[in-house]
Amino acid sequence: MSEPKQPVVRPYLTTRSLMPENQETPIQFIQSDIVKHKLFYRRNHFSYPALSYSNYWLPIDGLVTSPALLSMNDLLRLPSKTLKVVLECSGDKRSLFEPKVFGEQWEKGAISQGIWKGVPLSALLEHTGIKEGAKEVVVEGYDYGERTDLDQVYTFSRSLPIEKALHPDTMIAYEYNHRPIPFKHGYPLRLIVPQWYAMASVKWIKRISIIGSHFSGPFQSIDYVYYPSKENDNNAFPVTTINVNSTIQKPLDMDILNTGKHSIKGIAWTGKGTVTKVEVSTDNGRTWAKANMDYSDDMSYEWVSWSYEWTILEKGEYTVLSKATDSTGQTQPALPFWNRKGYGYHAIDQIKVKAE
Amino acid sequence: MSEPKQPVVRPYLTTRSLMPENQETPIQFIQSDIVKHKLFYRRNHFSYPALSYSNYWLPIDGLVTSPALLSMNDLLRLPSKTLKVVLECSGDKRSLFEPKVFGEQWEKGAISQGIWKGVPLSALLEHTGIKEGAKEVVVEGYDYGERTDLDQVYTFSRSLPIEKALHPDTMIAYEYNHRPIPFKHGYPLRLIVPQWYAMASVKWIKRISIIGSHFSGPFQSIDYVYYPSKENDNNAFPVTTINVNSTIQKPLDMDILNTGKHSIKGIAWTGKGTVTKVEVSTDNGRTWAKANMDYSDDMSYEWVSWSYEWTILEKGEYTVLSKATDSTGQTQPALPFWNRKGYGYHAIDQIKVKAE
Repeated sequence: MSEPKQPVVRPYLTTRSLMPENQETPIQFIQSDIVKHKLFYRRNHFSYPALSYSNYWLPIDGLVTSPALLSMNDLLRLPSKTLKVVLECSGDKRSLFEPKVFGEQWEKGAISQGIWKGVPLSALLEHTGIKEGAKEVVVEGYDYGERTDLDQVYTFSRSLPIEKALHPDTMIAYEYNHRPIPFKHGYPLRLIVPQWYAMASVKWIKRISIIGSHFSGPFQSIDYVYYPSKENDNNAFPVTTINVNSTIQKPLDMDILNTGKHSIKGIAWTGKGTVTKVEVSTDNGRTWAKANMDYSDDMSYEWVSWSYEWTILEKGEYTVLSKATDSTGQTQPALPFWNRKGYGYHAIDQIKVKAE
Repeated sequence: MSEPKQPVVRPYLTTRSLMPENQETPIQFIQSDIVKHKLFYRRNHFSYPALSYSNYWLPIDGLVTSPALLSMNDLLRLPSKTLKVVLECSGDKRSLFEPKVFGEQWEKGAISQGIWKGVPLSALLEHTGIKEGAKEVVVEGYDYGERTDLDQVYTFSRSLPIEKALHPDTMIAYEYNHRPIPFKHGYPLRLIVPQWYAMASVKWIKRISIIGSHFSGPFQSIDYVYYPSKENDNNAFPVTTINVNSTIQKPLDMDILNTGKHSIKGIAWTGKGTVTKVEVSTDNGRTWAKANMDYSDDMSYEWVSWSYEWTILEKGEYTVLSKATDSTGQTQPALPFWNRKGYGYHAIDQIKVKAE
């Protein structure tokens, strides 16, 4: 018998489905502010597309002065930008809605963060020029397939209002964590839209088109829409900016602890603005205390790690909450905004523990 | 830029905790009746032990006529037995209890199955002889550590009544799926106790002792005991035999389906006896139909795979149930037997789907 390997203990992605592949980041066990691509959540609507990399060209057309067909080398020669960005699936925490919502049952790990490098979309559009009447920029992915609710085959396509497309940090990325983007995350080119939920950050870009009307593909007009009513589509509005949010990473829900000292740890993030405050309650919201926040240099689009030192004096059960507030004054609500497709969950985070 | 690797899509273990390591089998995605060791759930009370393999000896002592100290080669020379066995953690499905129970929040994947080869414990005890007054066989593991509820350090140790220890299929295993047991699953020797929940199948065996009294280590007298009351220990009784049980693997809970034909698939298993019937309901228990069962040659200790062809005629929400019955007449109850530490969950399995 040979000697066994040293037992390495590490977390894995949590599998939600395989066809298409949907797997969560084990967010409770992520200690870095840069998630390795193997632990970056995977969210797909379809099976992975087949691309011809050796002959990859990016067309930019529609309401542009001079349509372009860019090679990877064309893109790599343009001035680049590097940003650390949190990407959160708008279905993150969907499984927490009550009543429960159909669809992928994401727990708290449809969120990741890393370093994206690419060319600002605005630089490309400066290059092609924009014609009068331009309203939206449509970005189409190479991934396609059938939907349960429609008969046709669709590619995954989304549009941005022209102002968001021209935001200096909206970019056509070609690197993740200083390497070519891993295939499952959009190689060779992925749109990165900071501040918005990640359905906007289209993978495997096939085409960029400027249009003079409102784009109405199913991933914009059917999915990724908040429907406040179970019965009808009244008062529906599109999913865009990430809500202010926080997640307790430690202790784990339903943990059994000793009395004594414990660190409560977590992350907090938001779309518009930056997180200015995280509060923690260890008595189910009766009292709150400020958590310590671990800011880095540039918090524009990053999550902030926070911690709170807790001393458990008495045995018993405790409900621990975390609540983030951002610089625009938004704060996590006590109750989630229920919507039929289960987007944008951002109620106060909650775990229970028992001290014995 | 280099060409990307082909996108391989595969499930991973679901991480519950890392210190100690507790990870679930992605049971919904397991299609084989033999689970590869990388997807075999890991359940630990402590960090992994450090063993001296080069100098590994197994002592058998206590109420034996001639105490023994066996080398691995001694064991490999003895007649062996090979069995396909389902191992299920008694905390499997704990997260489904209502009210919720503290401890590891296992979903449906603290269960696996594979091929174990080893020496029947009865053959070893024949070799050493058993003295009069022998009541239990204590098997001690190399893993040890602190508990939250006691001050001392304990090894993981469990006993078997002498009759169960002498059952011809209770074995000291040294191979899993035709290879030396992977370290995380008990290398070099693991007790395998078919029919019982897997806390009985002690890993990293350090010592086997025969005693004339009832063993009362904390993993037998505190943990792995059913406590029916939240407030006190009245009517407590030990966790032993696996309850009859079933799990729906497909579709997934909260899936959105088309109308039309679908296969409902799953597994069913039991401790004592064999599974004789699996029934499926697609109308939340109003009506039931028999599933097709996929028996193999020897179902003694294995799960059975089952399937049911379902045609969804109308759009809407459906609650799908599965209910197994075994040859001893036991059947899954509608409601789980709630107990304070959350063992032995085996209520009728349930998922919800929506057809659109």
